Amino acid sequence: MRALLSVSDKTGIVDFAKGLIDLGFEIVSTGGTWRVLKDAGLEVTEISEITNFPECFEGRVKTLNPYVHGGILYRRNKPDHVEEAKKLGIEPIDLVCVNLYPFKETIERTDNFEEIIENIDIGGPTMVRSAAKNFESVIIVTDPNDYDKVLMALKENKNTLEFRRELMIKAYEHTAQYDATIANYMNERFNEGFGNKQFIVGKKVFNTRYGENPHQKGALYEFEDFYNELNILKGEPSFNNLTDINAATKIAVSLGKGSVVIVKHGNPCGAALKEDLITSWQKALAADPVSAFGGVVAVNGVVTKELAEEINKIFVEVLIAGKITQEAQEVFANKKRIKLFDLGQAELEISGDMYDFKHIEGGFVYQTADFVKDEEVLEAKQVSIVGVEDKKDLLMAYKIAALTKSNCVAYVKDGALVAIGMGMTSRVDAAKCALKKAEELGIDVKGAAMASEAFFPFRDSVDEAAKAGIKAIVEPGGSIRDDEVIEAANEHGIALYFTGVRHFLH
Amino acid sequence: MRALLSVSDKTGIVDFAKGLIDLGFEIVSTGGTWRVLKDAGLEVTEISEITNFPECFEGRVKTLNPYVHGGILYRRNKPDHVEEAKKLGIEPIDLVCVNLYPFKETIERTDNFEEIIENIDIGGPTMVRSAAKNFESVIIVTDPNDYDKVLMALKENKNTLEFRRELMIKAYEHTAQYDATIANYMNERFNEGFGNKQFIVGKKVFNTRYGENPHQKGALYEFEDFYNELNILKGEPSFNNLTDINAATKIAVSLGKGSVVIVKHGNPCGAALKEDLITSWQKALAADPVSAFGGVVAVNGVVTKELAEEINKIFVEVLIAGKITQEAQEVFANKKRIKLFDLGQAELEISGDMYDFKHIEGGFVYQTADFVKDEEVLEAKQVSIVGVEDKKDLLMAYKIAALTKSNCVAYVKDGALVAIGMGMTSRVDAAKCALKKAEELGIDVKGAAMASEAFFPFRDSVDEAAKAGIKAIVEPGGSIRDDEVIEAANEHGIALYFTGVRHFLH
Repeated sequence: MRALLSVSDKTGIVDFAKGLIDLGFEIVSTGGTWRVLKDAGLEVTEISEITNFPECFEGRVKTLNPYVHGGILYRRNKPDHVEEAKKLGIEPIDLVCVNLYPFKETIERTDNFEEIIENIDIGGPTMVRSAAKNFESVIIVTDPNDYDKVLMALKENKNTLEFRRELMIKAYEHTAQYDATIANYMNERFNEGFGNKQFIVGKKVFNTRYGENPHQKGALYEFEDFYNELNILKGEPSFNNLTDINAATKIAVSLGKGSVVIVKHGNPCGAALKEDLITSWQKALAADPVSAFGGVVAVNGVVTKELAEEINKIFVEVLIAGKITQEAQEVFANKKRIKLFDLGQAELEISGDMYDFKHIEGGFVYQTADFVKDEEVLEAKQVSIVGVEDKKDLLMAYKIAALTKSNCVAYVKDGALVAIGMGMTSRVDAAKCALKKAEELGIDVKGAAMASEAFFPFRDSVDEAAKAGIKAIVEPGGSIRDDEVIEAANEHGIALYFTGVRHFLH
Repeated sequence: MRALLSVSDKTGIVDFAKGLIDLGFEIVSTGGTWRVLKDAGLEVTEISEITNFPECFEGRVKTLNPYVHGGILYRRNKPDHVEEAKKLGIEPIDLVCVNLYPFKETIERTDNFEEIIENIDIGGPTMVRSAAKNFESVIIVTDPNDYDKVLMALKENKNTLEFRRELMIKAYEHTAQYDATIANYMNERFNEGFGNKQFIVGKKVFNTRYGENPHQKGALYEFEDFYNELNILKGEPSFNNLTDINAATKIAVSLGKGSVVIVKHGNPCGAALKEDLITSWQKALAADPVSAFGGVVAVNGVVTKELAEEINKIFVEVLIAGKITQEAQEVFANKKRIKLFDLGQAELEISGDMYDFKHIEGGFVYQTADFVKDEEVLEAKQVSIVGVEDKKDLLMAYKIAALTKSNCVAYVKDGALVAIGMGMTSRVDAAKCALKKAEELGIDVKGAAMASEAFFPFRDSVDEAAKAGIKAIVEPGGSIRDDEVIEAANEHGIALYFTGVRHFLH
């Protein structure tokens, strides 16, 4: 039996080759791999002995040869193939171990286009694809993590068709991702990220128990090794947990260290940034204790025993934090349904992807990501007569409104969300429902700051705000009736700021 | 100059070859392509004359040869490459025209795995990738639609580096999509659609003016030729229009021919299915005329002049319909801001994708799609003492609730949405806000049917419904307090049905 080894990442290759030799394989190899194996004292055949052709053009052509690909591709169970191979002097290659020139690492390291082009592997993907196509007879190994598994399968007579089929699938995933990375990179470099084809590629982290609903299947996929960072301390995140954790964490990171955010169905029902985490939790909870039941709580900091005991007074489904201490975890030990996740660090953090996308039937819409900057509020244009000294509450309300489903109107007082209306088809409804609910809950919103993620089309929301005693408002501006909105603010003595930036989120 | 032509799809290849010959190219070709060109009376060199090796293994190995790939890959501006080529007898190949074995068409046509495997092209992608890598000197053509463009560029001395670079990008898009299709197919076949890697691939339909907000860039991508069907009669769909059109069309298709749906920010603010489209429109509008302003209207049928005149009484931003007649289009001719789209057919239709996905920072969640079946309501379990004869309104409310952002409670009376609460963190808030708004608008909800896309956790929503005179309720059931909910229904003499199926949508 013969194995062809040609790897860019040499991790574990010597041991793998040794293992194959012990099993009776003849090893054939190319350039750098050949050198490494030779230096380790192994007996290796150089590829040119098989191809009857020298490596040429600085390695651009090494394995693109009928003796190599014939040996991989001919069908062992077809007598005419076998005979043809014999006639042409083509000998079988039974195992192909290849990993590719590091295109991705190269683009992360340099902008030098010549170097980048040189790191597009041609021979490698061809061997991978050839061997995968003939998985009926050939083992294709593309991942150093699989070396032991492959040796084991060969030793224990478990080199079954199913085994090789799984390796085949992995091989085509490998080449597909490789070329998707090339295409996306070229489009990023030359077409501003919006090329004719867009490739969204994910690596599975885990299957979820089900999808958004129990009759749907679901899974989490990541772009890079991102969810490695997520420590699953207790319970398993469901599909909806994952989207809620995303929403809660984004807001908590945006509000900063020390904040606590409670999310339900992707939208916040509580958020606060107070002098300590326990107060932040209490204030976040106070905004809507009914919705908070069974919610997803993001703590941007460390959950201590004391905080855990506070949180444990109500049922929360998910707690995600920078860190949850051992003592804190023990507080929840007897609670069956709560799920605990942390990042093992002092603060929450989230990948700020540069692109965002949404599935719509038949395809998807793709866009550059939306980011909210502090300056939008801190340097917002004051359009009313009166202003405010301290914009902290305005900024907080604005961030929450921008990270909540449109239409959203958020009210913040003394570092805590006190009312919020979201996801509605009419902005004034969002403004009014929020205030109505705060009133029912006995929450005093007098003096609060109010934010809207898009302009108020009419003065009605400002009039409602005035009735509730709101002191300051921030919104993008841009309505044809901005004058009326400003007039309303001035009539009521409310400070009004325009940021000039809209933050729809659907 | 030499061109290598090897195509699976022979469309236009003869004319392209003629054009190249006229420009002084020598044509080299393989198997089937060679035959076609020869039969057309062209002078063509067989590939084996170059490779000094026969096609073998039923065509599995034809072009995987250093004379081919050396000729494509050596760098013309490097003296040592040029000299090496000379020494090895390798002649340059300056243009490569390849399209691949029809893997996708094969999996759509057959389940025969052997045939499917045979339709994984190995030589083709290798030539495409080789030529693309050396785009510095080589033209890579992968799309018959580009033949004229390429001939023109060659004739008019416009064969620039930029021109070849765009073709290079297209080439890697081509091979990336090819292998993504293989990997997804194998995972669909052997791993229930949830493989270790997931490839979401879109073809750009158009750039949108901007993304979800003006500071974001955006574009629409489709899986298949889907948006071909969409006739853009007036205006250009924005990023948010596209997601709203998706939401409105899904509901209108679900409600059936004759329905009209108005969407704002992805959620419906009006929906009706009445005896004719004009009445459907009027009833849909009546549910919330304020939100309908600037909304996206989906008409599941043909928009005539009469209907257009009715719709034109208010400002709608988008009208999408099965068909908008010429006379109807003229009604809107003077309205600058309205956008008109239709499918050129009697009814609306939407691609029912089998999978759904959502971006979350660092990756995405992926799931099988959610579908709402009529039987869920028509065969729902009656859990109250009283029932209803006609479940039409219940079914309509249920469908709307399932296709609106959670938490959603929808109220339908006589084939028209009369109240709806959505996107909220608390279900009872959704139930109450909807009724409050209907009351403010003077809408009589007495006798309406009510639906919730997930169970009522408490009896409070039923009590609120009773106050408003709701006659029938449908919801999934499954709360630990179902007994209390049933008891409330019975106390108030309301018919209550459990479907057993939840339809969260976030």
